[in-house]
Amino acid sequence: MKKQFKHIVLVGKYQDKQLRDQVVCLADFLRTKHMHVTLETNTALCAEITDYPIVELSEITSQVDLVIVLGGDGTMLGVARTLLEQQIPLLGVNRGRIGFLTDISAEDMLEVVGSVLKGAYLLEQRLMLQANVTRQSASIFTGLALNDVVISKGEAARLIDLEVTINGQFVHRQRSDGLIIATPTGTTAYALSAGGPILHPTLEAITLVPICPHTLSNRPITIHSTSEVCVALVDKEKSHIHLDGQSNVELQQGDHIAIKRAEKTLPLLHPTGHCHFDMLRKKLNWG
Amino acid sequence: MKKQFKHIVLVGKYQDKQLRDQVVCLADFLRTKHMHVTLETNTALCAEITDYPIVELSEITSQVDLVIVLGGDGTMLGVARTLLEQQIPLLGVNRGRIGFLTDISAEDMLEVVGSVLKGAYLLEQRLMLQANVTRQSASIFTGLALNDVVISKGEAARLIDLEVTINGQFVHRQRSDGLIIATPTGTTAYALSAGGPILHPTLEAITLVPICPHTLSNRPITIHSTSEVCVALVDKEKSHIHLDGQSNVELQQGDHIAIKRAEKTLPLLHPTGHCHFDMLRKKLNWG
Amino acid sequence: MKKQFKHIVLVGKYQDKQLRDQVVCLADFLRTKHMHVTLETNTALCAEITDYPIVELSEITSQVDLVIVLGGDGTMLGVARTLLEQQIPLLGVNRGRIGFLTDISAEDMLEVVGSVLKGAYLLEQRLMLQANVTRQSASIFTGLALNDVVISKGEAARLIDLEVTINGQFVHRQRSDGLIIATPTGTTAYALSAGGPILHPTLEAITLVPICPHTLSNRPITIHSTSEVCVALVDKEKSHIHLDGQSNVELQQGDHIAIKRAEKTLPLLHPTGHCHFDMLRKKLNWG
Amino acid sequence: MKKQFKHIVLVGKYQDKQLRDQVVCLADFLRTKHMHVTLETNTALCAEITDYPIVELSEITSQVDLVIVLGGDGTMLGVARTLLEQQIPLLGVNRGRIGFLTDISAEDMLEVVGSVLKGAYLLEQRLMLQANVTRQSASIFTGLALNDVVISKGEAARLIDLEVTINGQFVHRQRSDGLIIATPTGTTAYALSAGGPILHPTLEAITLVPICPHTLSNRPITIHSTSEVCVALVDKEKSHIHLDGQSNVELQQGDHIAIKRAEKTLPLLHPTGHCHFDMLRKKLNWG
Repeated sequence: MKKQFKHIVLVGKYQDKQLRDQVVCLADFLRTKHMHVTLETNTALCAEITDYPIVELSEITSQVDLVIVLGGDGTMLGVARTLLEQQIPLLGVNRGRIGFLTDISAEDMLEVVGSVLKGAYLLEQRLMLQANVTRQSASIFTGLALNDVVISKGEAARLIDLEVTINGQFVHRQRSDGLIIATPTGTTAYALSAGGPILHPTLEAITLVPICPHTLSNRPITIHSTSEVCVALVDKEKSHIHLDGQSNVELQQGDHIAIKRAEKTLPLLHPTGHCHFDMLRKKLNWG
Repeated sequence: MKKQFKHIVLVGKYQDKQLRDQVVCLADFLRTKHMHVTLETNTALCAEITDYPIVELSEITSQVDLVIVLGGDGTMLGVARTLLEQQIPLLGVNRGRIGFLTDISAEDMLEVVGSVLKGAYLLEQRLMLQANVTRQSASIFTGLALNDVVISKGEAARLIDLEVTINGQFVHRQRSDGLIIATPTGTTAYALSAGGPILHPTLEAITLVPICPHTLSNRPITIHSTSEVCVALVDKEKSHIHLDGQSNVELQQGDHIAIKRAEKTLPLLHPTGHCHFDMLRKKLNWG
Repeated sequence: MKKQFKHIVLVGKYQDKQLRDQVVCLADFLRTKHMHVTLETNTALCAEITDYPIVELSEITSQVDLVIVLGGDGTMLGVARTLLEQQIPLLGVNRGRIGFLTDISAEDMLEVVGSVLKGAYLLEQRLMLQANVTRQSASIFTGLALNDVVISKGEAARLIDLEVTINGQFVHRQRSDGLIIATPTGTTAYALSAGGPILHPTLEAITLVPICPHTLSNRPITIHSTSEVCVALVDKEKSHIHLDGQSNVELQQGDHIAIKRAEKTLPLLHPTGHCHFDMLRKKLNWG
Repeated sequence: MKKQFKHIVLVGKYQDKQLRDQVVCLADFLRTKHMHVTLETNTALCAEITDYPIVELSEITSQVDLVIVLGGDGTMLGVARTLLEQQIPLLGVNRGRIGFLTDISAEDMLEVVGSVLKGAYLLEQRLMLQANVTRQSASIFTGLALNDVVISKGEAARLIDLEVTINGQFVHRQRSDGLIIATPTGTTAYALSAGGPILHPTLEAITLVPICPHTLSNRPITIHSTSEVCVALVDKEKSHIHLDGQSNVELQQGDHIAIKRAEKTLPLLHPTGHCHFDMLRKKLNWG
């Protein structure tokens, strides 16, 4: 059974001043459809819109029925990480080239959003990762990722030395520029540039993609989503952990990074007729 | 609960005359353990062993509790395709370098098989593929594969032109030397040589790996195991379909090849302590 | 100093009936420029043109100043192999998408060819390969290639086993679907699909690109153009040698294939302003 | 004609205290052969050797006939950059696993060096790169590289945007983690990890290898060694240039990096019988 949408929050890409018209247009449209519309605080401030109630991103509650994200995949990633716990469906509208996550175009926005409100949507549950960094037995950082957890060298030219175990089983020790642990969603992002496999979003899988590995035969491996990956930083080179290329912690020798599937999955809406292969074909310039 | 093994069939690699001693040694050992031992007919003939009952591979019934395959992964592939329907657990012993499927070494054979009989084993359910070739609306060939279904050009130098759909959705039309559709089991075989991803055997996934694709961005994609893949042969170049690199049918322009997960999975036994990552590390020369 | 063109031969792609108008148009144009125009016999027959003298491709002599090839890269490859000895400059005109070798478009044909006749061209010397197959100490085949010499398996699914030496030094023994030995010209053709490097045509280099090699670390290597490559067919699987994907000989176990730079280079003309990187960018969809 | 060696300088890896015995052993051996032996200052200090004359690395003059480097490829890289101008032949001895540049093993040291002194060596001229960074029309950095010039992103997760021209011709604009410009010598180092081609040291070539490029079809290209490569840093992300993974300058938006072949080549000695393919086979675990 399709969900009834009543209370909708709009979140826009902050840096994009020109988003104002699009936000106002969509908010007004939703009001005509008798929706209760709230704007995310920064979106409203940045776009200088004052005639809608506002809410901080981190204070959106599970009573909201739908969050519509206006921006690119990067904007969606941040919203997804912040709102995973609330389990509110997300829908993405893009200005520029359509993204993998924000797959409604600006031109079709009103028509497609209108259809979605009437139930013309597909609900996908996207798995997310949870990373936990332990230093000398104490947890020093925890975070979520929708695309990927990346452990990579700093600005020095030197390789880093990582030891990888999966479910407690030793996998290998690798020297490389870093390691990407990606969800299926993330396999069309950074992991793809590093030579990783493309995994359909419906797969219960996680992939480990080395970045410029020293050993030629060190190929990406793809494991079950319920696997627990542990990466230990063996050497003393400075390195970093990035979640979705956004949040960032510096790592030290001896740090352990545990990565596993987040307990909850992200409810992502696509307009009916959405086809993942169409996206791939466009993005990858097939044919 | 662990299965009780009573009736065991031994199948050896036919071309390997030197297998005789190994087969006799194992059969005699199993008899001392009060097992009911039968030899596959060709194995017995080839090894000139006459003091055990024999049975044709294709006539092994589900009353058999265990089939032990002595040979390489190639031997196991053939047995798996023939016996899938009977759902008998398979266990592999290798003479030479340990394979991914035949992972007991000749030296440890008696000890490890003895332990397996006492319950020291892991049972894996490996997914297999079923391929069906349709010509002018009539099915002309059906077969099973544990590793892969490969559609490839003949000996001519020309590329072939394939159109791929998944669950009825158009994916792309590709010019290449061919296309590999592999199970997770098959991802460490031919698909790996063609640049495909390594998928853990527990994944419910199928991967499509193009062979020398004309378009550089034509990368392998990995989809859910319940997907139905359909490949249409667009042009008039001669091409072939191979199942596990063994059975083989010539294809014509206009042929449709439908590939989907076989209904049943293959019960494969490993000795306790088996670790897939150890195998990968050895096979891929990691470290 | 630029060459004076007087005697020009036109060669068209035989299978392309619609080439007639293009050939006639170009021939008539050249006649107005006081050139002595001859048509290659099959081109004239196929296009049913009777008012120009004709000559067999193999009987074109070095007194001809220029051969203009109308067709795709495939047509050019055949002409290059046949006429290398005569050292006549070749110029390529394409109907469809511009090729790497036939880089004048049909629309610009008269204008660009007119400019070339006045000296607005670049002369490139493209290196070619000479392959010689020896069976039991006797040479059984010799041929030329502008793109590549390919040794590959037949229609069976089995890998072939090749032993490679360079200048008498053992390089490796490889199991694969085959081996491509390519000129820089050939690196944007089949070798690229197999994961080979892109070499600028000015390089004095030859590259060896394995096709689906069994060993993951078996990467392409690029050597000096003066190197002598020798490939021995170790096992008994049927395999083939292809020159430019066109001529073809079946190989047997024990055959030796010696590949080296042809003594002469191919004089290839480009219109002034031609830029190899533009071609790459278009062909590879960069940006 | 082979060179007569009289004056030899020894340079060791500084961090390696255990090198002392090896240095003393070699120095004493050379003295018995009536060579004039000098130690590089830091080598002598670090190893606490006081009975040989010393010289600063940067003050070694072209009157020295031979510099023997004891250490790994990293040590050799630094010596090569410092001494290129002096055109003194270099010979490398390794303690641990043999490197591509330091190809005499510790065990064979005296015997092999003895033979080299008698003329049993091959002289290779290795091409090196010269990089020049221009900021607002002023040159702010110049340096040499034997392996590679690497322009790469800093510790941030963001891609950098580079525009590449070759000999003044626009090649492409790429978004990636960076770009490696490598000599043939460097193609077995970092460039190989990033998916670059293996070029034989005798090739007059330079290769451009993107690091994790955003566009899948952005493949490495290999050009003539006389080409001038210019890379412009388009965006405002912080990035760096590294020469041989050692010296390092921070780059700003708008910086131009010009890379071309250094005027002089590095004279590198190998013992007679040295085979580059043997090295490749060992390093890449072929077979």
